[in-house]
Order: sequence, then structure tokens, then C-alpha cells
Amino acid sequence: MRKCFKCSQKAQVYLPQHRLSLCKDHYLQWFDNRVEKTIKEFKMFKKEDKILVAVSGGKDSLSLWKALTNLGYQADGFYINLGIGEYSEKSEKLATAFSEKIGRPLYKISLKQEIMPIPEIKKHDSRPTCSVCGTVKRYYMNKFAKDNGYKIIATGHNLDDEAAVLFSNTLNWSVEYLKRQYPVLPEEDGFIRKVKPLCKISEKESAMYAILSGIEYIEEECPFSEGATSIDYKIFLSQLEEKSPGTKLRFYSEFLRKMYPILQKSEEKPQLRPCKICGEPSINEICSVCSLKLKLKKQEEKA
Amino acid sequence: MRKCFKCSQKAQVYLPQHRLSLCKDHYLQWFDNRVEKTIKEFKMFKKEDKILVAVSGGKDSLSLWKALTNLGYQADGFYINLGIGEYSEKSEKLATAFSEKIGRPLYKISLKQEIMPIPEIKKHDSRPTCSVCGTVKRYYMNKFAKDNGYKIIATGHNLDDEAAVLFSNTLNWSVEYLKRQYPVLPEEDGFIRKVKPLCKISEKESAMYAILSGIEYIEEECPFSEGATSIDYKIFLSQLEEKSPGTKLRFYSEFLRKMYPILQKSEEKPQLRPCKICGEPSINEICSVCSLKLKLKKQEEKA
Ligand SMILES: [Zn+2]
Ligand SMILES: [Zn+2]
Ligand SMILES: [Zn+2]
Ligand SMILES: [Zn+2]
Repeated sequence: MRKCFKCSQKAQVYLPQHRLSLCKDHYLQWFDNRVEKTIKEFKMFKKEDKILVAVSGGKDSLSLWKALTNLGYQADGFYINLGIGEYSEKSEKLATAFSEKIGRPLYKISLKQEIMPIPEIKKHDSRPTCSVCGTVKRYYMNKFAKDNGYKIIATGHNLDDEAAVLFSNTLNWSVEYLKRQYPVLPEEDGFIRKVKPLCKISEKESAMYAILSGIEYIEEECPFSEGATSIDYKIFLSQLEEKSPGTKLRFYSEFLRKMYPILQKSEEKPQLRPCKICGEPSINEICSVCSLKLKLKKQEEKA
Repeated sequence: MRKCFKCSQKAQVYLPQHRLSLCKDHYLQWFDNRVEKTIKEFKMFKKEDKILVAVSGGKDSLSLWKALTNLGYQADGFYINLGIGEYSEKSEKLATAFSEKIGRPLYKISLKQEIMPIPEIKKHDSRPTCSVCGTVKRYYMNKFAKDNGYKIIATGHNLDDEAAVLFSNTLNWSVEYLKRQYPVLPEEDGFIRKVKPLCKISEKESAMYAILSGIEYIEEECPFSEGATSIDYKIFLSQLEEKSPGTKLRFYSEFLRKMYPILQKSEEKPQLRPCKICGEPSINEICSVCSLKLKLKKQEEKA
């Protein structure tokens, strides 16, 4: 029987990459501490900052919201109903219930009201759904945060997410993307500061935290995420991890420690400017959400 | 039936990452051309240069020697008998036979005479065998080349070898190693110029070339290479390659094209100086082969 490293009672969790066995209470404590350490390591935010958490209703965003609240941060939730049938209904219900449970407000918008539901957009836009979805979320979340005095947006991206993106960008050596792969994107050009406090927490660790804390979360993945290549990379990295525990964490943290600073010194970033239509930051004259809206409108007029 | 892209006869070889089908003759031609292109791309050497090929008796080194000879380069062979029982006997015989077949000299040395056979060294040295072996080969080859007027050492490292090393160094973000990962190491600090003309040729392609050219090569791997972690990475990369042909080549060439130049700009390299005992280039006062010899001598005296 494995014993908790802290209290010697029966361990409920074993973390191979840290060679650490912990009981339930000490695991929850470990998790909160690890989040706090990550926040400090990357100087993400302070106790007095107003934080807006991107809440999807999944384990990562709810665990993050819970940990931030436990740690005494002022974290409110922001939820976008993407209009993806039952998946969206269920996730909205769970996110709302959780917000009531921890006594923090959850702000909600509906994509159906703002543009149209994702399944409708998908009919008119040939890009992968995840990419459209990401664009839309980023846009409305940023706008809401600015309009309501939030200085920071926190998202639930975990180590598996970040390592998979890093892996994909490394296989192609996409230098421009690698340069931006950091758990903090500073406020600039009309974008609110964005942080990823779970970047050193694995998917398993975050699921374990949600389960042991009694958080009810949506277990289904978004039905449109199926077949995304990032899932292949996650599987590959998990194979490496299994052979040699700690590989994923080392790959990600050593990148941040050794390669990221080198990349920062090379050349400059693309310049952003306000969108001609809505004023939000954009690489082109018209931002990607306004372009999407224009495109959808044109197609409607034709029909 | 697949047809040869060049002559429309029945294809014998299909190269998925290049989406190319070729008959035997056109495959051999394609291979020679690809080697020539790589030599030119990295400005490895010219027709008038005297080249020493590191010959192990395996498919890569013999295919390389053959291709260089076909292309009209002056390439002679250098073979080190490592004293690994039957493996060494057989590989020396095959290397010698091949040298006679193509009418180019093969120079040989025996580790047993220079220090002691690898299996003996292994008893006294705790490092992985491949690392000792690499040190020893590099040392004697460099020394021989200098003493005999060769300006260039060519080794048979193929794309799979290079991609696996790159992958391993990338997983750890070993910046100092990544900086030196290039198919040409220029002459400097007492080291002869070293080149890898097969760096864009996969292991399969090189085996195919050897077989279709009728080269007799040693198929067994060195018995000490078993369990080397580089083999795990090769398997892993092959899985990625199978899912998406061209991944390996893209990973390696995009590194060279996009990341290598960035790494060159950052900081300086470790300084080399002549070994106090033998005068060969070394990071420490005494080079690694002389240190090995000293260590072996001490252990002998004790015994
Ligand atoms: Zn405990
Ligand atoms: Zn806009
Ligand atoms: Zn042909
Ligand atoms: Zn020496």
C-alpha cells in the first residue's frame, strides 16, 4: 500500500512524474499549491487583480476556478454558449450550478444571439471548427473583460494541451508560433493580459482534482473536436510519458526555461491595429470576427 | 501496378514522403542525385577534395561510399575494428570486399592494438558503450585524416539517425547540442571538416539502395547498441511518419532552415584546446581518449 508522503495515511493518488503519493486532502492541497507556484513563477497576477476565468464546464476550467477561489483570488466566470445542441445545454447547466456552489458570478453570452450557433457557422466556413471556435471565444471574452474592468483572463489550458501545441509547432519548427508559446500573454494592442495557471498541471491531475473535490463537470468532449490532430499528438506524448514519466513536463518547462528566451531575441512581432469595424485588435484592416460576420451576411443575401 | 515516374516501366520502389514511384535504375539515379543535391545544398565538398569515408560495413556507410564514387568524388574508406567478436570480423570482411569491388583503398586500424577491444573497455568504463565507441571512432578517424592529407571526413548518418538525435535534444531542449546539429561541422580547433551527405536519406531508402545495387553489407546491428534510447525515438518517429509521411524529413529540414540560424546567433561555443598528452583537440586539459587510456592503465596497475 502506498502511503501519503505528508501524513502517512493511505494514499489515494500517485503522481509518477513527481514520484509522489498523496491522500485526498493532501492532494487537493498539493494542487492548489502548484497552481499558486505557477502564478508566482510567471508573475501572472496578484491578490488585488480582478480575474475573469474562461469557463467551459469541463474539468480544467472548473478546477481552475475552484483553485483560484481557494487561494483567495477574485475570480469570476465567463461562459459562451456555442449553441452546440445538448453539449452546450449541459455544460451551461453545470457551469451555472458550480458558480452558485462557490458563490462567484458567472457571466454568460450566447453565440446564437451574437452571430449564429457554431453548427450554423460551420456550414459557411471551411476552417476547422476548433479554429473558428477559438477565434470567437477569444474575441468575445476579450471584449467582455475590457468592458467590465477585468485586467486578466485566465484559461484552463493544462500541461497536456500546452505540450501538444508545443509538439506540433516543434515538428514544423513554426518559429512565429513558438515565440508566442508562453503561459502569459501580456496586455498589448487592445488585448487583455491572458494567463494559463494550469500549464504545469497534467490532464489527469486536473481530472483527479475535480473528482476528489466533488466538482460536477461535463465529461464529453466537444463533438466537433473529434479528429483534431492535437489529439494524435496527445496520444504520442502520452506514450513517451508512459515510457519515461516526466517527459511531458520536462519538454514543456525546459522549452520555457531555455528556448523561449532565445526566441524572444530574434526579430520582431507582427504589428496589430484596431479593426476598422469594431475597433478590436487585428492583424488585418478588418478583424477575423467581423470578417466572419461579413462573409455570413453575404452568403445570407445570396440565399 | 505502380509505374516508374521517369520511364513508366514497372516501379520497384515507392517513396511515400516524396509520393514517388521508381524503377530500379531510376531509383539508383534518384539516390545519387539526392546525395549530390545535399552535398551542394550544404556546400560539403568539391570534386577536387580528398574525402575519407567512415566505413562500418553497414548499409549506410557502404551506400554512401558507392554514391560518392558514382558521382565522381575521390572517396577512400577508413575502418576501425572495434574487436566486438564475430560482428567485427564479419563487418571487416564485407568492408574489405566492397573496397576491392569499387577499386578504392580502405585503411584499417584495430582498437585491440590502439587501446583494447570495446568489450574489454566496457568492463572498466561505466558510460554507455555507444558513447565510448563514438569517442574512440571520432578520435582515431580525425587523427588518421590529418596525418594522411584528407580534408574531409564523411559519415553515413541518415535522416532517421539525425531526426532521432534532434528529437532527443528537442525533448530536453539541450540548446548546446541543438546548436551543433548540422550536417557540416567545419574544420576548427584541430578537428577535420565533418559532413553527413545522407542526412536527407531515410534508413529505408539507404537499405533499398544497398540491396538494389547488390552491395553486401552487415545486417546485424552492433550487439552493444541494443537498448539505446535513440532506438525508442526512432520507433516513435516512425509511428508519426506512418500517420503522416514526410513528418521526419520536415522535422529535420525545417529545423535546419528555420531554427538552426536562430540558435547560431545566441552566445558563444565552448573553447577547445590541444590535449596535453597527445595534442588532439579537447575541452579539458587531457582529451577523452587519453583520459580513458590513463584510467585503464591505473586499473591495470591495481589488478
Ligand atoms: Zn496525507
Ligand atoms: Zn472587428
Ligand atoms: Zn524508370
Ligand atoms: Zn589526448
